Amino acid sequence: MKPQAEPRSAYPYFQPITTRWMDNDVYGHVNNVVYYSYFDTVVNTYLIRQGVLDVTSGDTIGLVIETQCNYFSSLSFPETVIAGLRVARLGTSSVRYEVGLFSGDDEVAAAQGHFIHVYVDRVTRRPVPLPGALREALLPLATGAMTGQE
Amino acid sequence: MKPQAEPRSAYPYFQPITTRWMDNDVYGHVNNVVYYSYFDTVVNTYLIRQGVLDVTSGDTIGLVIETQCNYFSSLSFPETVIAGLRVARLGTSSVRYEVGLFSGDDEVAAAQGHFIHVYVDRVTRRPVPLPGALREALLPLATGAMTGQE
Amino acid sequence: MKPQAEPRSAYPYFQPITTRWMDNDVYGHVNNVVYYSYFDTVVNTYLIRQGVLDVTSGDTIGLVIETQCNYFSSLSFPETVIAGLRVARLGTSSVRYEVGLFSGDDEVAAAQGHFIHVYVDRVTRRPVPLPGALREALLPLATGAMTGQE
Amino acid sequence: MKPQAEPRSAYPYFQPITTRWMDNDVYGHVNNVVYYSYFDTVVNTYLIRQGVLDVTSGDTIGLVIETQCNYFSSLSFPETVIAGLRVARLGTSSVRYEVGLFSGDDEVAAAQGHFIHVYVDRVTRRPVPLPGALREALLPLATGAMTGQE
Repeated sequence: MKPQAEPRSAYPYFQPITTRWMDNDVYGHVNNVVYYSYFDTVVNTYLIRQGVLDVTSGDTIGLVIETQCNYFSSLSFPETVIAGLRVARLGTSSVRYEVGLFSGDDEVAAAQGHFIHVYVDRVTRRPVPLPGALREALLPLATGAMTGQE
Repeated sequence: MKPQAEPRSAYPYFQPITTRWMDNDVYGHVNNVVYYSYFDTVVNTYLIRQGVLDVTSGDTIGLVIETQCNYFSSLSFPETVIAGLRVARLGTSSVRYEVGLFSGDDEVAAAQGHFIHVYVDRVTRRPVPLPGALREALLPLATGAMTGQE
Repeated sequence: MKPQAEPRSAYPYFQPITTRWMDNDVYGHVNNVVYYSYFDTVVNTYLIRQGVLDVTSGDTIGLVIETQCNYFSSLSFPETVIAGLRVARLGTSSVRYEVGLFSGDDEVAAAQGHFIHVYVDRVTRRPVPLPGALREALLPLATGAMTGQE
Repeated sequence: MKPQAEPRSAYPYFQPITTRWMDNDVYGHVNNVVYYSYFDTVVNTYLIRQGVLDVTSGDTIGLVIETQCNYFSSLSFPETVIAGLRVARLGTSSVRYEVGLFSGDDEVAAAQGHFIHVYVDRVTRRPVPLPGALREALLPLATGAMTGQE
């Protein structure tokens, strides 16, 4: 099944990300790697602003276990990219985020993909249930998401 | 189906990649984004060394349409990562590369993923058949690969 | 002479730059390298918006021959950095840009530095006089700058 | 005084650094920013291998207060760059590293610059004397360096 670019209406949360000169590769477009730095940024900005990511002293850490991206059309410096974010699955100890990247006023995504966090104990690195505050902070992004047991 | 880390024997070609101080994120491990710069590097190094990637004047360009990565264990600066490369599918106008990243003497991959190129005309951006020289250069990486029609 | 952090009033032009998760290094602050990507970005965004940077087909290219940065206080993801830009010297074939990076509402720069472009012929790579349109576009940034012969 | 590219013999320590596809910018050469990631890497690799950089629990931290680079000729992916390192000044609480980047078998540097660390207490962020083990580890790089009071 060929992936289809989705519209802005598929995402409940948006954040602008400014591109950088060095994002462009030799072909004059944002390099495929850099898209993932936008994914990383929209997810972690949301978590920090919600107060549910404590990088230095939280008991639990979100480890990234899988990322993926489909590229439909190109992005280029110096445009500002709009990143849309949703939670597609809220499991017992994992979260599947889905991100769409939009160029200018385009109604459909230039690229979209996912990013899976599994929460582990900072010391033992064993999976733990998502902290309650995190789960609560993610619910507004999870409209329509499957929740519950993994 | 949970992805499984594969052994070195699953890859016919290897390349060392030196990590950098800034590859490590705040948790002291290589950031998930950076893995894709290793993917990008092993694929393009192979193509350039084989003489089948002409960045500035080739008639055809390989566009990246999909990338994906599973993370099994962490990599950290200052280690040198060994990137394994194979061709998993050689289509009419596309190539699916698979990459495994190995730490130290580990027999199984710390991470693995894929990278799909579709070849297009530099001007029209319409898919074109893989150039013959490219196809030939990729055959040694494609042992066991499905080839032929997409 | 110890460098002193300058105020916002020292810069005639400003541009916001969003930080990224991977900008932070293991100490939780933006890595020293990344500051230069902000320098690069504010200079090239200005030139592109003024219509005086034609990346793919201009006859002349601006080569970077020197960059430098002093770090006074730290920047951290997820803040938005404000980059201030001025032209400190407009020579016959070179431009010295100076950049200040500001955090939040701070009146003095967290970091500042310079970036020197020399313009060369795209083919011969020999220095050429700054194109007239470029010189004109830079004048508003050059209040107080020394101009003329190098 | 125009900076001059120095020979390999000006550096007592060398480390190879593999370039990456995304290091190249739209002009097909390593972007000016990326050179600093090579600086950062050779300095920190040396310190870690000498056992004098404890990222997570040392009492003191080396803060970067100034960096600078002159670019003489270009570097390009997929070459392996050789980074030369020396200590040009070993002060009471600061170290000035100088780095030369060499391409292929070239005898003179493609770029060179410096990187100044000041050591501070992890908690108070006040300058402290360089730890004795660090000073000892740096001596072999400091042949000819001015040492002593700042």
